[in-house]
Amino acid sequence: MEKIIYVVGIGPGGEQGMTQEARKVIEACDVIVGYVSYAELLKPYFPEKEYVTTGMRQEIERCRLCFDLAAQGKKIALVCSGDAGVYGMAAPMYELLEEYEDKPGYEEIELSVVSGVTAANSGAAILGAPLNHDFCVISLSDLLTSWETIEKRLRAAIDGDFAMAIYNPSSHKRKDYLQRACDVMLDEGADPNRACGFVRNIGRAGMESHVCSLSELREAEVDMFTTVFVGNSKSYLKDGKLITKRGYSI
Amino acid sequence: MEKIIYVVGIGPGGEQGMTQEARKVIEACDVIVGYVSYAELLKPYFPEKEYVTTGMRQEIERCRLCFDLAAQGKKIALVCSGDAGVYGMAAPMYELLEEYEDKPGYEEIELSVVSGVTAANSGAAILGAPLNHDFCVISLSDLLTSWETIEKRLRAAIDGDFAMAIYNPSSHKRKDYLQRACDVMLDEGADPNRACGFVRNIGRAGMESHVCSLSELREAEVDMFTTVFVGNSKSYLKDGKLITKRGYSI
Repeated sequence: MEKIIYVVGIGPGGEQGMTQEARKVIEACDVIVGYVSYAELLKPYFPEKEYVTTGMRQEIERCRLCFDLAAQGKKIALVCSGDAGVYGMAAPMYELLEEYEDKPGYEEIELSVVSGVTAANSGAAILGAPLNHDFCVISLSDLLTSWETIEKRLRAAIDGDFAMAIYNPSSHKRKDYLQRACDVMLDEGADPNRACGFVRNIGRAGMESHVCSLSELREAEVDMFTTVFVGNSKSYLKDGKLITKRGYSI
Repeated sequence: MEKIIYVVGIGPGGEQGMTQEARKVIEACDVIVGYVSYAELLKPYFPEKEYVTTGMRQEIERCRLCFDLAAQGKKIALVCSGDAGVYGMAAPMYELLEEYEDKPGYEEIELSVVSGVTAANSGAAILGAPLNHDFCVISLSDLLTSWETIEKRLRAAIDGDFAMAIYNPSSHKRKDYLQRACDVMLDEGADPNRACGFVRNIGRAGMESHVCSLSELREAEVDMFTTVFVGNSKSYLKDGKLITKRGYSI
């Protein structure tokens, strides 16, 4: 019997931001496994499904539950917000697959990743076109990455003059991380007037967006539901939008 | 009268990779404007629509057509493959909007960007989890960007130890650009055994994927329909997949 676990990116919010493929995969599964908040987003659209949820920082337990349920013959969709391969569950699932591939009852399990729209792109659409040239995606969470590595990447992003999407800019324990990141970028030579912006609750109730300079971004109040955008040196603000030119002659 | 031009990312291929929102926006429009190949992808799913197409390197003419059609009262969806804001038409449309905002008959035109799954993410899903930590997206096309800038960004991406998705790795006139990019990365200190991969025709007929080392990537035959992935220094290959760990303790 074929045993496939689908690792599905559901996009930014409800059913509207999901791809047709993601919707069909979820419709065809028996059990939706996910972080409790993402399960809540899906319940109105797939009320008949069985839901198995775990909390924050229980990512590996969540992954293992999928293998156990798949071994029992259940069809599983492990759902992630945005894209499953951007700070999502695709990598830990492939890491765990190695461990399970010789375990009786688990040998036939395969993985299939279904991509979704990540916050870099769904947030960019709200702000205009902040990532319309080469760009970087960087997380400020130092739960799984050292701050030294994060700082190195912020400096490299400025040196390479990339536009940036910054994930996890703040949390209860990391109130000042965006400020620290802005200080690193300024120290690396970024203009304090560099065009920036941020979007909160992308595709969900209470969505709001703002544009500002890099020095204003340093003072901005952001939370864990915010995605931050930093333009490259040629980006500009116009009528509340953040534009990074591709370079066409107009 | 409200005049909105929707700039719509349709994802990698046909209707399956499109979001629900993109499908609804296209269904509600009168005219689909796009590059001729993308229009062909959509015709089977929206056969009743009017299509207006332009060829490659006619991007600005394509954008201007949208403004003219919108001024005539037509509901327009300007379609882009992948995401509209990743090397797409979102930025040139916002640049042109400034020009049209005082033109009689055009003053009321507004833009709305509908995001889609870009090749970095749809290709990553095929390869496993190559971008599951901080990453860069870089285009090797020097039509609109100097090679010096491209090289600077490749070096910065290696210095920052980012995973990478590389767009436009080759074309008829730029046969050796991926080789040149690999040489830049190797010169910047990347390990010749760095884990890499590439996917051709993502989500379309004839899709194929490969994994390899950076030194093998240098010799790979790729074309303009290929998206290339370079892991970070800790990425690895396993059973034909390219995995970049997020960093969870497993």
